Amino acid sequence: MTVKRRPGRRPGSADTRGEILAAARKVFAEKGFDKATVRGIAREAAVDPALVHHYFDTKEGMFVAAMKLPFDPAELLPMLLDGPREQVGERLVRFVLTITSDAEARQPLLALIRSIMSNEQAGGMVREFLTNALLYRVAEGLGVPHLRMEAAFAQLFGVVMARYVIRMEPMASADIEDLVALLAPTIQRYLADGVS
Amino acid sequence: MTVKRRPGRRPGSADTRGEILAAARKVFAEKGFDKATVRGIAREAAVDPALVHHYFDTKEGMFVAAMKLPFDPAELLPMLLDGPREQVGERLVRFVLTITSDAEARQPLLALIRSIMSNEQAGGMVREFLTNALLYRVAEGLGVPHLRMEAAFAQLFGVVMARYVIRMEPMASADIEDLVALLAPTIQRYLADGVS
Repeated sequence: MTVKRRPGRRPGSADTRGEILAAARKVFAEKGFDKATVRGIAREAAVDPALVHHYFDTKEGMFVAAMKLPFDPAELLPMLLDGPREQVGERLVRFVLTITSDAEARQPLLALIRSIMSNEQAGGMVREFLTNALLYRVAEGLGVPHLRMEAAFAQLFGVVMARYVIRMEPMASADIEDLVALLAPTIQRYLADGVS
Repeated sequence: MTVKRRPGRRPGSADTRGEILAAARKVFAEKGFDKATVRGIAREAAVDPALVHHYFDTKEGMFVAAMKLPFDPAELLPMLLDGPREQVGERLVRFVLTITSDAEARQPLLALIRSIMSNEQAGGMVREFLTNALLYRVAEGLGVPHLRMEAAFAQLFGVVMARYVIRMEPMASADIEDLVALLAPTIQRYLADGVS
């Protein structure tokens, strides 16, 4: 999560992007996700807001890059909607298990989880991002109540914790497709059409 | 998690129990749950093993007391078996949500979760206790595969995390009975009779 600074900083180089991301991490941690602004992050990085927009389309995109998240939340809903509605649970389970099966992609997610546990401020930031930028949007896109989306999140979050943090067997070594078969009906039920 | 020591320790007083629990915390953390022994804990506390047995019937009971857990795992299976099998999911969900709704009972559970995240050794200890002393026994008592028991654990663990650590709404403020209605069918399916 640290940004290397070279002694002689060149304008418009990779360092500028790095400076913006370092500023973003600071502002997100201090203000939370909701209250952080592109303008405030630009001020912290001492660059023009237009330059921030040049590197990052949205605040969400900046958060994803700053936290090195292995996926863009903006891509999640289209992926879930791309296929039969009765297989949306299966698609979500397979997506989460596949992303987290990559040790390198998993590290920033585990770092974010650790920061929730140890730091009240980080908890607020992660909560705001998770709900407003991720879960509520997916819930609204699928037309399901927020509580049901959060129950689905809780199931998958718990599986990732059991598998990669607690590392309990047989969960830790279970085959992805066996877990998809076991978990997809749960997620499908939460995300089913026409529930309230 | 600290044990108060009085300057003048009286034999057989509450202090002896406290000394044993302090020794137990040290031995569990160093050896893990599986390899810790009543004899080793007695040696660490410099008391006779018979005295340890006088205070604590089992290693599990000592772990529960040392970690100040709000329930005894030995009581979980009889509670789950006490009633119609088709309501076992509902009983487990209500039990977990009721225990964790008490802020004081919740603290040692959250402390244990924090220790998993921050400390590799503590992770091993918690993993061994959770699987060997809790989940596997309940799974065997109910006649369900370990993986299904762990899927149920993951759902409930995720809900407790979402509700009390991440504190995401509407999950954090949801009524217990609404959550029971939402989650019990999931747990019931995992713990259903005659699955493999």
